Amino acid sequence: MSRFFTKSLSALQPYTPGEQPQDMQYIKLNTNESPFPPSPRVLEAIDREEVSRLYLYSDPDCRALIGAIAKRFGLEPDQVTVGNGSDEVLWFALRAFCDENTPLAYSDITYGCYSTWCGLLNVPSVLLPLKEDYSVDLSLYQKLDATVMVTNPNAPTGICLSPAQIEDILRANPDHVVIVDEAYVDFGGESCVPLIRRYDNLLVVQTCSKSRSLAGARLGFAMGSAELIADLNRIKFSFNPYNVNRLTCLAGIRAMEDEDYFRLCTRTVAETRDRTAEALKQMDFRLTDSKANFLFAQSSRIPGGELYRKLKEKGILVRHFDKPRLEDRLRITVGSREQMEALLTALRDLGA
Amino acid sequence: MSRFFTKSLSALQPYTPGEQPQDMQYIKLNTNESPFPPSPRVLEAIDREEVSRLYLYSDPDCRALIGAIAKRFGLEPDQVTVGNGSDEVLWFALRAFCDENTPLAYSDITYGCYSTWCGLLNVPSVLLPLKEDYSVDLSLYQKLDATVMVTNPNAPTGICLSPAQIEDILRANPDHVVIVDEAYVDFGGESCVPLIRRYDNLLVVQTCSKSRSLAGARLGFAMGSAELIADLNRIKFSFNPYNVNRLTCLAGIRAMEDEDYFRLCTRTVAETRDRTAEALKQMDFRLTDSKANFLFAQSSRIPGGELYRKLKEKGILVRHFDKPRLEDRLRITVGSREQMEALLTALRDLGA
Repeated sequence: MSRFFTKSLSALQPYTPGEQPQDMQYIKLNTNESPFPPSPRVLEAIDREEVSRLYLYSDPDCRALIGAIAKRFGLEPDQVTVGNGSDEVLWFALRAFCDENTPLAYSDITYGCYSTWCGLLNVPSVLLPLKEDYSVDLSLYQKLDATVMVTNPNAPTGICLSPAQIEDILRANPDHVVIVDEAYVDFGGESCVPLIRRYDNLLVVQTCSKSRSLAGARLGFAMGSAELIADLNRIKFSFNPYNVNRLTCLAGIRAMEDEDYFRLCTRTVAETRDRTAEALKQMDFRLTDSKANFLFAQSSRIPGGELYRKLKEKGILVRHFDKPRLEDRLRITVGSREQMEALLTALRDLGA
Repeated sequence: MSRFFTKSLSALQPYTPGEQPQDMQYIKLNTNESPFPPSPRVLEAIDREEVSRLYLYSDPDCRALIGAIAKRFGLEPDQVTVGNGSDEVLWFALRAFCDENTPLAYSDITYGCYSTWCGLLNVPSVLLPLKEDYSVDLSLYQKLDATVMVTNPNAPTGICLSPAQIEDILRANPDHVVIVDEAYVDFGGESCVPLIRRYDNLLVVQTCSKSRSLAGARLGFAMGSAELIADLNRIKFSFNPYNVNRLTCLAGIRAMEDEDYFRLCTRTVAETRDRTAEALKQMDFRLTDSKANFLFAQSSRIPGGELYRKLKEKGILVRHFDKPRLEDRLRITVGSREQMEALLTALRDLGA
């Protein structure tokens, strides 16, 4: 830190994203990207004419994009807003619904950005411990005096709650917003979007980074009551009104319209996940019941950190978190069938 | 505001961006976009193959882009960082270098986002009044107990300070960061980048939205000592590590490499500005000495708000700020020669 950096953030712990090697020589199973390119409609839409229009600002209200998302989910446009990745949208929600006196409650094992954002915003964290088997202890979610974050499926465990279980959380916390981060819901979880019309404290956040193959375009979106969405827009327009660029708006619209491609991609990933999980179990790996596009796997023979390094030497990148209760495991993105075959071969070679 | 919105931000005043009609039927001189498309190199670079790679995250460290910017400005890569528009970069700087006890000092007439960001961050504002003729009163910049924002050229006045004048501000405030917002510097101002090696409290922020015809791509960048840049990255990685998307990274690299096109575009805009200013003066308009890609003009016959509305009826959008000392004037983006001819014709028709 320079001598000018605010003392109020001296304890800030930035997030460490997964490795993004730029030479593309690895089999990359470490940041939960899709193994498929974006919808052919996206590839057709971003043409020379659209690129030549980049001298004009994007629509700050993102009307066409929000219209496409609303249509896809059966919502009104004023029930949707968008951001530069779901990271930005989630941050808007924390800024709108948390403060020094309104903590954020979330699992002790979950997406690392929540705690980082709490640090940046000076928001206290209420950590809700997962059970020994990484499942959620719903008894901890009763009358929390906090904004609640439910990551469904959770990361890096992939374990899902049902909408009925999330409804219990919504009912138990009627005076606080319950944010449901559904980044990974499209691979086998069940979305809470249908609950929006019944709960004014429900905010659902999704991303185009995983199930819509647009990680590199950066597009996330929030869905909730028109009032909650207006709150998020209040933050957006106080921060960066043109937060979603022209080409990403366009890509998002086309991706949202191509339901067939979305279903094909997500179904294929889910099938590959289940087949890979079966193979790993036969190799004595321990696995959670992941409904996401990743597996959370423990070798019975090689510790997590060592296995991560040995796989990297073999040209396969997976994610290892050097933290209590996570250090024995690897989070392995579900890639293409060929990539997963290569992974299984490498694991067999290593005697894992 | 919903009943869940944090009370700590109940007074927040979001920024109102200029109108962005989506039907393209206006002559759009209201948001200071370039009248030229991006460099042909940008148009060539964003091809189907690059779009098909959007399933992969962008490089969170933006190494290639930062390398290209550093090379263009004769800096080291660790003296540069990038963001989702200069709005985001400036916000990172405010978050890093201001807090409840470290105000932001800026002109009372300037870019509207500064006050909005102070509201969002709970940072006090120290407003430094411009003189009657909209010029900067440098005597107010002595030993400010605040982080200092210098908008050079200023908006919406277009008036410039020289690097020597900014050096006086840097010397008078050695224990505070002086942020120089050079969004409009390429049309006739002189950049402070060469001062970076001598002042560890200087942060220069530029954008690709104006002089590099990439408003719709959203790309801004900060330049300063490696220590100040590390501070900004600390905020970036605590907020949105993948803040610049793949296609914008690529567009920025190619735009930065095409110095000839950059010079052609900026020189043409400057010539068109000066020619338009001359014509307006002959019509008895009052003008500031704008070195930016806009004019700040007052009709001697028609009040600002009325003239804004009448021009809009004629299909020409300009920006009018309904505020003291601004309400009599219009901020008119310098568009193409044809657009400015249409503007002058419309003004003559209106008797302005």
